[in-house]
Amino acid sequence: MEPGDAARLGPGRAARALPPRLLLLPLLPLLLGRGLRGAAAASSSGAAAEDSSAMEELATEKEAEESHRQDSVSLLTFILLLTLTILTIWLFKHRRVRFLHETGLAMIYGLIVGVILRYGTTATSGHDKSLSCTQEDRAFSTLLVNVSGKFFEYTLKGEISPGKVNSVEQNDMLRKVTFDPEVFFNILLPPIIFHAGYSLKKRHFFRNLGSILAYAFLGTAVSCFIIGNLMYGVVKLMKIVGQLSDKFYYTDCLFFGAIISATDPVTVLAIFNELHADVDLYALLFGESVLNDAVAIVLSSSIVAYQPAGLNTHAFDAAAFFKSVGIFLGIFSGSFTMGAVTGVVTALVTKFTKLHCFPLLETALFFLMSWSTFLLAEACGFTGVVAVLFCGITQAHYTYNNLSVESRSRTKQLFEVLHFLAENFIFSYMGLALFTFQKHVFSPVFIIGAFVAIFLGRAAHIYPLSFFLNLGRRHKIGWNFQHMMMFSGLRGAMAFALAIRDTASYARQMMFTTTLLIVFFTVWIIGGGTTPMLSWLNIRVGIEEPSEEDQNEHRWQYFRVGVDPDQDLPPNNDSFQVLQGDGSDSARGNRTKQESAWLFRLWYSFDHNYLKPILTHSGPPLTTTLPAWCGLLAQCLTSPQVYENQEPLREEDSDFILTEGDLTLTFGDSAVTANGSSGSHTASMSLEGGRRMKSNSEEVLERDLGMGDPKVSSRGTRLVFPLEDNVRLPPQSPE
Amino acid sequence: MEPGDAARLGPGRAARALPPRLLLLPLLPLLLGRGLRGAAAASSSGAAAEDSSAMEELATEKEAEESHRQDSVSLLTFILLLTLTILTIWLFKHRRVRFLHETGLAMIYGLIVGVILRYGTTATSGHDKSLSCTQEDRAFSTLLVNVSGKFFEYTLKGEISPGKVNSVEQNDMLRKVTFDPEVFFNILLPPIIFHAGYSLKKRHFFRNLGSILAYAFLGTAVSCFIIGNLMYGVVKLMKIVGQLSDKFYYTDCLFFGAIISATDPVTVLAIFNELHADVDLYALLFGESVLNDAVAIVLSSSIVAYQPAGLNTHAFDAAAFFKSVGIFLGIFSGSFTMGAVTGVVTALVTKFTKLHCFPLLETALFFLMSWSTFLLAEACGFTGVVAVLFCGITQAHYTYNNLSVESRSRTKQLFEVLHFLAENFIFSYMGLALFTFQKHVFSPVFIIGAFVAIFLGRAAHIYPLSFFLNLGRRHKIGWNFQHMMMFSGLRGAMAFALAIRDTASYARQMMFTTTLLIVFFTVWIIGGGTTPMLSWLNIRVGIEEPSEEDQNEHRWQYFRVGVDPDQDLPPNNDSFQVLQGDGSDSARGNRTKQESAWLFRLWYSFDHNYLKPILTHSGPPLTTTLPAWCGLLAQCLTSPQVYENQEPLREEDSDFILTEGDLTLTFGDSAVTANGSSGSHTASMSLEGGRRMKSNSEEVLERDLGMGDPKVSSRGTRLVFPLEDNVRLPPQSPE
Repeated sequence: MEPGDAARLGPGRAARALPPRLLLLPLLPLLLGRGLRGAAAASSSGAAAEDSSAMEELATEKEAEESHRQDSVSLLTFILLLTLTILTIWLFKHRRVRFLHETGLAMIYGLIVGVILRYGTTATSGHDKSLSCTQEDRAFSTLLVNVSGKFFEYTLKGEISPGKVNSVEQNDMLRKVTFDPEVFFNILLPPIIFHAGYSLKKRHFFRNLGSILAYAFLGTAVSCFIIGNLMYGVVKLMKIVGQLSDKFYYTDCLFFGAIISATDPVTVLAIFNELHADVDLYALLFGESVLNDAVAIVLSSSIVAYQPAGLNTHAFDAAAFFKSVGIFLGIFSGSFTMGAVTGVVTALVTKFTKLHCFPLLETALFFLMSWSTFLLAEACGFTGVVAVLFCGITQAHYTYNNLSVESRSRTKQLFEVLHFLAENFIFSYMGLALFTFQKHVFSPVFIIGAFVAIFLGRAAHIYPLSFFLNLGRRHKIGWNFQHMMMFSGLRGAMAFALAIRDTASYARQMMFTTTLLIVFFTVWIIGGGTTPMLSWLNIRVGIEEPSEEDQNEHRWQYFRVGVDPDQDLPPNNDSFQVLQGDGSDSARGNRTKQESAWLFRLWYSFDHNYLKPILTHSGPPLTTTLPAWCGLLAQCLTSPQVYENQEPLREEDSDFILTEGDLTLTFGDSAVTANGSSGSHTASMSLEGGRRMKSNSEEVLERDLGMGDPKVSSRGTRLVFPLEDNVRLPPQSPE
Repeated sequence: MEPGDAARLGPGRAARALPPRLLLLPLLPLLLGRGLRGAAAASSSGAAAEDSSAMEELATEKEAEESHRQDSVSLLTFILLLTLTILTIWLFKHRRVRFLHETGLAMIYGLIVGVILRYGTTATSGHDKSLSCTQEDRAFSTLLVNVSGKFFEYTLKGEISPGKVNSVEQNDMLRKVTFDPEVFFNILLPPIIFHAGYSLKKRHFFRNLGSILAYAFLGTAVSCFIIGNLMYGVVKLMKIVGQLSDKFYYTDCLFFGAIISATDPVTVLAIFNELHADVDLYALLFGESVLNDAVAIVLSSSIVAYQPAGLNTHAFDAAAFFKSVGIFLGIFSGSFTMGAVTGVVTALVTKFTKLHCFPLLETALFFLMSWSTFLLAEACGFTGVVAVLFCGITQAHYTYNNLSVESRSRTKQLFEVLHFLAENFIFSYMGLALFTFQKHVFSPVFIIGAFVAIFLGRAAHIYPLSFFLNLGRRHKIGWNFQHMMMFSGLRGAMAFALAIRDTASYARQMMFTTTLLIVFFTVWIIGGGTTPMLSWLNIRVGIEEPSEEDQNEHRWQYFRVGVDPDQDLPPNNDSFQVLQGDGSDSARGNRTKQESAWLFRLWYSFDHNYLKPILTHSGPPLTTTLPAWCGLLAQCLTSPQVYENQEPLREEDSDFILTEGDLTLTFGDSAVTANGSSGSHTASMSLEGGRRMKSNSEEVLERDLGMGDPKVSSRGTRLVFPLEDNVRLPPQSPE
């Protein structure tokens, strides 16, 4: 026995019988619930050693220790994979290679390691034991087994389909590198999704909110339905040809449609970011992909919940259908509420305490509250991942403004790192799974059918929806944008996580294999083709993104001056930027469509007049916006900073000034100067009182269209910017 | 069935049978190794629903879902606890309350919740089932159970002592909030320990390295031995009185000595930090507590491994003893090597790639490499926590210098947050455990004996060791320092984690209860008494700590100028600061003792001439320090930056200049100015060549003692600083 061995028999003895997931890491995921007795039981083998025969115990211990070591080795494999990926990404970024994104790279490395594990390691038998227990009619969560006088505790892992029972011999290493699918949902996806919500480019997001919601909700539903029906046709065909060896129901097809409808254009967006491509297209794609993840999760849950009442299953049942719809709405709104409520609570806590003096405490609180959203939603029976998304959006919209400068960067960076690690882990795991997953069902017909179906599904979702949206949009979504959105229908982490969640039946296994291949294909091919596609579609690149400067200005200038550069803008500001593609004539022709944004405008003024002042230090004082009889309450809720900063806040009241602020931020000027120079205008405008506040959005629009008042031209240097932009780039054709 | 319920039966169906630790969180601890079959098995219950009787399954599912929800609720409880703690800490910091530290607070909240859970919830029975399986002679890690035709998979949790088998009825909620003890070692301690290593104040740490090592190694061993023997006396007494109801061996006593010897003066150090107390005392206490954690872990492993060869156990066996010593040395050096090697590899990777252009990649790499240390050590049979400590120190010493400015703050902040959350979690869990842990053995005699023993053990460790150290130290450890160190013997997270790791036997349970009470007592009483004690012992406070400015200067001034303000200093620089207590006469009387630091000086010059140039961008070019025949290798290893920055580096070569740099940093001046002004001196000194480099340490010392050359007085404004400091504070008596 080598020294290390012997020593691990020390207090380490307790560790041996433990499942591998406990050797985790310098993180604190607070593993829970093994139970007091379990803890004691796990360690009692050490204490009992003295008075019982030690030989057999030693064998068990050795085996357990070997298992512990193998766990460490397999985790090390993943770390090595990620490290390799990071170094290669650096090399690629360093040499400006754009044809392969880091996620694609992670998959390739995963594939290689998967091949090695699959064909390079020898199969060892699992240490399993079959017991019969026919006198009971249900399984218990804990089992005490009496083995020659000693009691061992076992926990239920789950049911096994009878066919699998006899295939116990299996490569141990392959087992070790295979994760529980719930890991993706409970550990890896939440930071990815939260980060997506937290880093939504809000200005552009809210500007395109209507379209994004339409793409995400209607689009995903349409896509799911079309793919599901097409795949049902494919399955019918397979049945006729005799390629189908097991059951494959219509609901299975719809389920496939739901999981494959979650787009994840992470590759495309990374290139957009790098090339500074059009921000509105970015917002549309990013917003759609973020929200359709949530829609896909809830949709797939609802489809599985669709259980016709009668025994004649898999026929259409209106009651079950409406139940499914109800479930969809219930889960979605419940998760949304959970996320929003936690975000609002965090905003209130950070507003009314002076926690910002201690960035560490603030960051820790932020992290804990965001995490609690997930648990709260799960505890209430909603979907944690969806709740986390809306929590992220709320945190970014309100809480972020209350944080200290240091906490802002801390929280951003913390979730950025977590997101990065989790995402690359999932993609390298995907590569690995292609070879280590042992129940692949490769069906060429199904796979080809699926590729055709997702293509058609995406087309049937983008083009008609864009047409209808363009009827209502002031700034049309150009053909080139539509083609780009069509092209960017990558499938990624969410589709994979949904597919791997349940791989028990034949149909599900076939879906999983197909999903894996779709993800590979789309990430590699589409990821590599993004840059050529952008230039082919004449989508302008090289636009100055405000994000970086934004953050810097945050850091240097906005500290405690009450100005919030990240805040969303009135809906009418988009007129400055989306004048491209066929946008120019739309702006001329659709002025009457302004009212289509009435819902958003309602929300905007409510948010600006009530929510922002209540939840953050910005916005107009509540004492001015709330009715008089709420005076005391308003005074309590309004932070003193608001009164102190009343001058800049009154500036913010005016949409016009905000517009200018936006421009300033967008083009990287100094916002402070802009605010300063426009102070006089504000003062004059604020004299006209609150009534004006709602009407001047239209005024701004008119001004933008060249009918504005002389004030605008006096600030010509800024308004000229979009024109300069057009000059810099060649005029773009609609196609 | 409410909507949420029904929907979770969807893809969520797979989740139900899973153990609770999987609903973790927006983190990525890559839970591993459940095995492919487990994954499939867990979800197959969903697929099998259609063709089997659904009723009983529904019952199992409901139950599993209930369990899933309870897990979420109990994790939420902890998050609520931590949130409350954070808010109260803020209140305390805001009002400058110092009598209760955040850890003490966390314990109090934990206690309250524990009381509520213990007495406020009703006991429900655990869903356990006892099986007999007498035909086998060993336990298997996986069990397949055939329950009326369906197969369920169970995993081994561990052995249960026969006495516990019948006490299956237990409060479910209490079980849920009880964590697996290995969670502490594998998830919560690593970030705490890594952060401790990564944030060691290196200048002061290395300056006092000899004393710190002595306290940590010799001191902990002495303390362990004394406490063990005293407790053995107590146990004998208990046996005579009849208070002992089960076995309690001598090795158990020694084990108790080992676990209780790990001091954790986090409370004291927090107050030191806040009051800017003496940095050397801080370094001594912090260094000791960091290293003695590692020593205590390895020591306790070695003691458990002490198994006398013959059947006549618990008598002294020389062979077993030496085996234990060998194990101690083996584990310790192995873990040390693992940590150092990973750190060195990270340093090399960050040096030779231009990863610093992408802080996100750099941070992710740093995190992964640091985590891999833990896994590597565990995979090799060493102790992960100890390896992580030395990895942290290595990362701080080398890698930190290669990181970009953003990554420096990112990594520091990342581990700071993780450390904060983990530490407060452990302490609140401790409070909870006092009421929720169900096997407490309160033995008043043992507890009183333990308090006396730890007091005597600490005294027998601090005072004699300090006496011997003072014989060798140029700057004596004053009586007030010794008393403060004696007083600061708090026990914390490590003692708790070691004690809870094995609570199977009667002796271990008694130890656990006693440890818990010792932690409570020391954290509350000593934590509260630190400020009065500091003033009573005349330990100077209000010393300008360089840490903050240091970091800021990092951020603003040191970016890529090749100057490394965090680097350790030559051993003789301490003469500037520790002239207090009885330090002044020691400095006069012990000049002949300089050679006692020869080992450290050897290490320092090796580190400075070879390791730093190889691993970082600083230090003298290897081409000048390596022998001529290594020319090519030296050129490969030396980074171009070194040649570019040859001027400032040559400045660093000179201990004298570094001394001034230290002073400058210590007293918050602008280091750049200092370097600039001293440039001419450097130039003149560097002419004298490398020979001078080793000798001028003695010169500096002489100069400090008032015999220096005239150059020193020409820079009087800086050297006067310590005197000014003395003027500001009243002269301190040795007692």
